[in-house]
Amino acid sequence: MITDADELARLDQRSQFHPFTGVADLAKEGPTVMTGGQGVRVRDAHGREYLDGMAGLWCVNLGYGRKEITEAIAKQSERLSFFHTFNGMTTDVVAECADALLKRAPVPMSRVFFGASGSDANETQLKLIWYYNNLRGKPEKKKIIARQYSYHGSGVATGSLTGLPSMHNFFDLPQGPIIHVSAPYYYRKAPEGMSERDFSRHLAKELEETIEREGAHTIAAFFAEAVMGAGGLIPPPEGYFDEIGPILKKHDILLVADEVVSGFGRLGTYWGSQTYGYEPDLITSAKGVTSGYFPMSVCFISPKVWDVIEGAQDRTGVFGHGYTYSAHPVGAAAALAALKLIDELKVVENVADVGPYLLGNLKDKLGQHPHIGDIRGKGLMLGVELVQDRASKEAFPPANRTGREILKAAAKRGLITRALGDTLVFAPPLVINREESDELVEKFALAVGDVLG
Amino acid sequence: MITDADELARLDQRSQFHPFTGVADLAKEGPTVMTGGQGVRVRDAHGREYLDGMAGLWCVNLGYGRKEITEAIAKQSERLSFFHTFNGMTTDVVAECADALLKRAPVPMSRVFFGASGSDANETQLKLIWYYNNLRGKPEKKKIIARQYSYHGSGVATGSLTGLPSMHNFFDLPQGPIIHVSAPYYYRKAPEGMSERDFSRHLAKELEETIEREGAHTIAAFFAEAVMGAGGLIPPPEGYFDEIGPILKKHDILLVADEVVSGFGRLGTYWGSQTYGYEPDLITSAKGVTSGYFPMSVCFISPKVWDVIEGAQDRTGVFGHGYTYSAHPVGAAAALAALKLIDELKVVENVADVGPYLLGNLKDKLGQHPHIGDIRGKGLMLGVELVQDRASKEAFPPANRTGREILKAAAKRGLITRALGDTLVFAPPLVINREESDELVEKFALAVGDVLG
Repeated sequence: MITDADELARLDQRSQFHPFTGVADLAKEGPTVMTGGQGVRVRDAHGREYLDGMAGLWCVNLGYGRKEITEAIAKQSERLSFFHTFNGMTTDVVAECADALLKRAPVPMSRVFFGASGSDANETQLKLIWYYNNLRGKPEKKKIIARQYSYHGSGVATGSLTGLPSMHNFFDLPQGPIIHVSAPYYYRKAPEGMSERDFSRHLAKELEETIEREGAHTIAAFFAEAVMGAGGLIPPPEGYFDEIGPILKKHDILLVADEVVSGFGRLGTYWGSQTYGYEPDLITSAKGVTSGYFPMSVCFISPKVWDVIEGAQDRTGVFGHGYTYSAHPVGAAAALAALKLIDELKVVENVADVGPYLLGNLKDKLGQHPHIGDIRGKGLMLGVELVQDRASKEAFPPANRTGREILKAAAKRGLITRALGDTLVFAPPLVINREESDELVEKFALAVGDVLG
Repeated sequence: MITDADELARLDQRSQFHPFTGVADLAKEGPTVMTGGQGVRVRDAHGREYLDGMAGLWCVNLGYGRKEITEAIAKQSERLSFFHTFNGMTTDVVAECADALLKRAPVPMSRVFFGASGSDANETQLKLIWYYNNLRGKPEKKKIIARQYSYHGSGVATGSLTGLPSMHNFFDLPQGPIIHVSAPYYYRKAPEGMSERDFSRHLAKELEETIEREGAHTIAAFFAEAVMGAGGLIPPPEGYFDEIGPILKKHDILLVADEVVSGFGRLGTYWGSQTYGYEPDLITSAKGVTSGYFPMSVCFISPKVWDVIEGAQDRTGVFGHGYTYSAHPVGAAAALAALKLIDELKVVENVADVGPYLLGNLKDKLGQHPHIGDIRGKGLMLGVELVQDRASKEAFPPANRTGREILKAAAKRGLITRALGDTLVFAPPLVINREESDELVEKFALAVGDVLG
């Protein structure tokens, strides 16, 4: 095993094409090489320690090096290192895991379908939705509504669902029957002087008009994250889902809750849909289900959809969809251990406590900073949006890459954050305590000072 | 942990929606619940043992319970249970793994891009190809040619690439700019009396005509498995890739080698492209890279493509693609252990020995059976196609599900195979020895006898 930091950086630089990285940035700056992690902290090859304000990629919800999970992984890997659930096969641990997941669903659900990533799960949802409407004799009902600024994955179709130009340009996306409506981005998109509640009505009206324009008989589903994540940390304005839900129901449009980030406690309730009080027909989850220790995704399928699928074999034959790593037994063992810990460690309760406390501290420390325009979020999903000018909300010139400069300053101070343009984001492990969250705010405030004074 | 076989089956049946399974079949027959595995064998909840003739899903190449891999997984999971390579981050073990993989490429390659499944890797390839041609100023050059009977994944786009009606019907696939040409399926699709070599020329001519019809300036890439797997175990006829390769080169069309099944030794060479002597511009791999112990995929990117991407940041910004579980450190640790074992255990050499031996035995034992039409394959990727009538090649009525009946009979005899329609498939662990392969043939012959006499 190579331990020399420079040698590792060189190897990586000349061998790996990095996701969501600037190729020229990497060539110029080299990678940061992580080598270890414990609790809310990770350590790099130079021995520097960081408070991980992003829980990896919003996923290491139970913190690093959690023995109960690593031991479950080790044990299952030895017992049965792989098996699948094609052709009516299964494994003991997968059967238990599927049952444990269904029991934790926010509304009664009929089945779970396993995959290995949020992206593959949303690909599954798209195919399921079309399959369902074909079976129901509604072959025209196929269009999907998603929202600008949304993130639903990186496949061709899920990247198309995603509402981010940076993921479309140069990739020829979006492709397919996808319509993007406005983002519920109150800070930037609400007409001046409009209340949150009225902005929600305004967006509901746009949705209603879109459905009318396209024809409800052509629209199959609406995809929504509870709080938008990678698109810029955007919580819904007050009453948003109360307005949207009935419109979808009225027009027989499935509500797909993308809970990849929000599921398993991040917003201070077990599911994001519980924070905002809506009832999904399909749920997409991943990340938190294994705390990122093993790639796993889970689609939850409601009775409404399942009842149609259940009797389909006579017409469609074997269900022609699935992944090699659907229902990996080691992933199921990791998930069972994680689900148990979420209960035992009272993780959801911790988020409900530390989340608002952390948000309050951010606002206290930085709320009056001349270059901070908005501090927002829910639970442990928080964002700080930089501006050149508070009054006009004018942004910094993108070429300045101000968010990235702060991210780099924070790293120097031993804090990992993420820059979504000029919105700095925090989604720390859900087991973070108040003291650690104080440290996060302190280091971040220093980093902001380093760059913006 | 639940151990009662019936209870586990019940839990699974009422909770999990299974990939590639008939919903009614599962409701009627219940699942087979696996609980353990060692070497080439797995064990179910009733304590019954099976020789796994499919290595899980063509992936457990080094056999079950291989200590060197399970220990690498356990150790890395404890050290650093997750990290990512977004935003110029990396981990020590990923840097080493990327380097080790590049060193094993069949032709000089510039970079690897990590994912968690063959499907996500082929989604990556599609996006890369479009990105590449946009950067080259060839915005019209976007169509993808794949082949009937091919298997390239289960996403919306990769399921569209796949050339199987059972994966298209009811899902509204194929979608996107995809063209399917004929499968190199000599047994069923060659005009009567045509030699393999001539059939290859015939298919090359069809490809050339397709390119001419569409316009070479509209065609970006050609996807091909070395031996077609899930589509029915179809090796290319003699000279196929020799004919195809120059046509693609002439028209500036990228050759994407889908080596998800064939990579890492399955055909008796390290890569399938080496068995048939062609030079890929992009390689998709997964399965064997970790022997299925951890979900991981790897795209290899040639200098031709990389040179265009490398300088792109000024125009495109940060590369907007990637998965949470791209470059998972525990996957990298599993891969490093697996790559080492492939070398140390001389796995490729074993396949080159046992593969032809097993194929020979299948032909000896079953080659004259009145209901076996074709026995074919390469290395440890073998297929036995059933027919009602050998002379006319007439198939059994699909409603009989004859292949499935034999699969069930084989399971009763303690052997796992897979039925792709009426082609029974074997892709055992690559460490299988001659004795175990004898047992495979013996059990299979008995199962054939049970059903077909």
